Amino acid sequence: MADANSIIIDLKFSRDEVVSALENAFPGRTVIDMGNPSSAWQDLSKAAYAVVWKPDPLLFKRATGLKAVFSGGAGVDHVMTTPDLPDVPVVRFVDRSLTDRMSEWVVWQCLHHLRHGFVYARQQERRTWAEVKRQPEARDVTVGVMGLGVLGADAAQKLKTMGFSVLGWSRRKKQLDGIETYDASDLEEFLARTDILVGLLPLTPETRGMFDRAIFEKLNRHGALGGPIFLNAGRGGSQVESDLIACLSDGTLKAASLDVFEREPLAVDSPLWAMENVVVTPHAAAASEVRALFRHVQEQISRIEAGKPLENIVDRSVGY
Amino acid sequence: MADANSIIIDLKFSRDEVVSALENAFPGRTVIDMGNPSSAWQDLSKAAYAVVWKPDPLLFKRATGLKAVFSGGAGVDHVMTTPDLPDVPVVRFVDRSLTDRMSEWVVWQCLHHLRHGFVYARQQERRTWAEVKRQPEARDVTVGVMGLGVLGADAAQKLKTMGFSVLGWSRRKKQLDGIETYDASDLEEFLARTDILVGLLPLTPETRGMFDRAIFEKLNRHGALGGPIFLNAGRGGSQVESDLIACLSDGTLKAASLDVFEREPLAVDSPLWAMENVVVTPHAAAASEVRALFRHVQEQISRIEAGKPLENIVDRSVGY
Repeated sequence: MADANSIIIDLKFSRDEVVSALENAFPGRTVIDMGNPSSAWQDLSKAAYAVVWKPDPLLFKRATGLKAVFSGGAGVDHVMTTPDLPDVPVVRFVDRSLTDRMSEWVVWQCLHHLRHGFVYARQQERRTWAEVKRQPEARDVTVGVMGLGVLGADAAQKLKTMGFSVLGWSRRKKQLDGIETYDASDLEEFLARTDILVGLLPLTPETRGMFDRAIFEKLNRHGALGGPIFLNAGRGGSQVESDLIACLSDGTLKAASLDVFEREPLAVDSPLWAMENVVVTPHAAAASEVRALFRHVQEQISRIEAGKPLENIVDRSVGY
Repeated sequence: MADANSIIIDLKFSRDEVVSALENAFPGRTVIDMGNPSSAWQDLSKAAYAVVWKPDPLLFKRATGLKAVFSGGAGVDHVMTTPDLPDVPVVRFVDRSLTDRMSEWVVWQCLHHLRHGFVYARQQERRTWAEVKRQPEARDVTVGVMGLGVLGADAAQKLKTMGFSVLGWSRRKKQLDGIETYDASDLEEFLARTDILVGLLPLTPETRGMFDRAIFEKLNRHGALGGPIFLNAGRGGSQVESDLIACLSDGTLKAASLDVFEREPLAVDSPLWAMENVVVTPHAAAASEVRALFRHVQEQISRIEAGKPLENIVDRSVGY
């Protein structure tokens, strides 16, 4: 029976991971795990907190006493679009581990493209020993990071340490130590200088479908890699996949690394799987570690109960 | 006709690159390019300098007036083993560009193994959407770098920035900022803690055949990646390929990334090409940029002529 001390868990993650992380989590608190069939008909009206990832569409109709909603990941679009979201703080999951993992993926993929990973893998298959003649250094290549939240800022700094020339872009101008940044008014100039475009944008009505042919055509066509490259590890809804496929086929884009897709899992018949210039990973760039998520939620609840303000609250006027 | 101002170029690099880099190099100096057939019978006895990569075995018999020998790369084994090497300073090629490129390759390959690059590439081929369950972070993985010259030290620092736990090993103990280091007396302890072993050793009589089964068996078998991984971007002569192939087959090693081989080019019938847990690149991790090499040689000659000491001289007592 839910009381004012209860916490609802509605996470569409691996069941095993959630169940295992729930052991010893939230001591002294009633936990209502919506993945457990016995929770289906529980009265949720008194529960104070909800930790959600792609929640049930009826959840907020039933849980009417919430004081805060915690997103299970860095993105919050799945919460913001759930009906009847109450007017309480929505808290993003910000975590060192999540940030480090995202930067690992971004740097890995930038190095893969810089160091001719596709070419050498194919040469290995054919047992061909041949050095690629044109091998630019990282400093010859400009990576433009779109989205300068915690994830984008960390990725930008690590790319810079690896030697890349790095630019940053965000809707509202941000200052990053040692990195040149642009805002909405400068998008064209930012794109014109960018060789590898890295998408780390939140999904909002403004960013939906933002990565389309018009954007790809504005990237630098005279860079050291011989053509612009697109990486997306933000949200699949920000890319127009029909444009992306066409641009990867006609040379507007040289290559891409994609961790997110318009619809996930990516359909078996998507041409992206088999394109020779595309890396597909299954939304695995920065999976939320469930134990770390629960630690973060526990910390934030302790702040509420100690009368301190919550951290990483979503700004509803912009949707992230 | 060679005079005391002459410089011999004997570089077994791409001819095009050498010829192109020689334009405008070494102004005011006679350049004898051994790759040009017309140089074959020249009198080399008065030439003062030689820039060499895998030089002709007769070179030092003919060039008896040398004041310094410059290696075309970071390694010098190819010079040290050439007959009749005169007792003059042998200078290693140390260059920011060479260093950055090597670190790019090392970090790229460490991230490839950390982030299940093989698994995701195969899943993409089969159009399979499945997140690998066990995804350690970089901090859960210890990379042990063997060889802490300019290249090893830079790679170690960049791996650390990416989050890896990093250890260093060199024959003689070295201090590296924020990185725990071992020396010859501690090899076993270093290996026991290492999940990814990175070989960046020079080739000397002591390091020849050093990476053998006995070494691979001492690596950490209980690490977060499920088995030890070997990277070699130093010298192929330091690895025993029959042991390497056997260890990669029987599970002693989980995987490897190899840029160097006992014999190069790698033989078409080497089993390494087709092993599913091996990345092969064609000695391309850190190719010497010929223009940068000539700038470095010009700087060092200017030092000699200004009465200053040469930099990066090989210690003949240890061979590197």
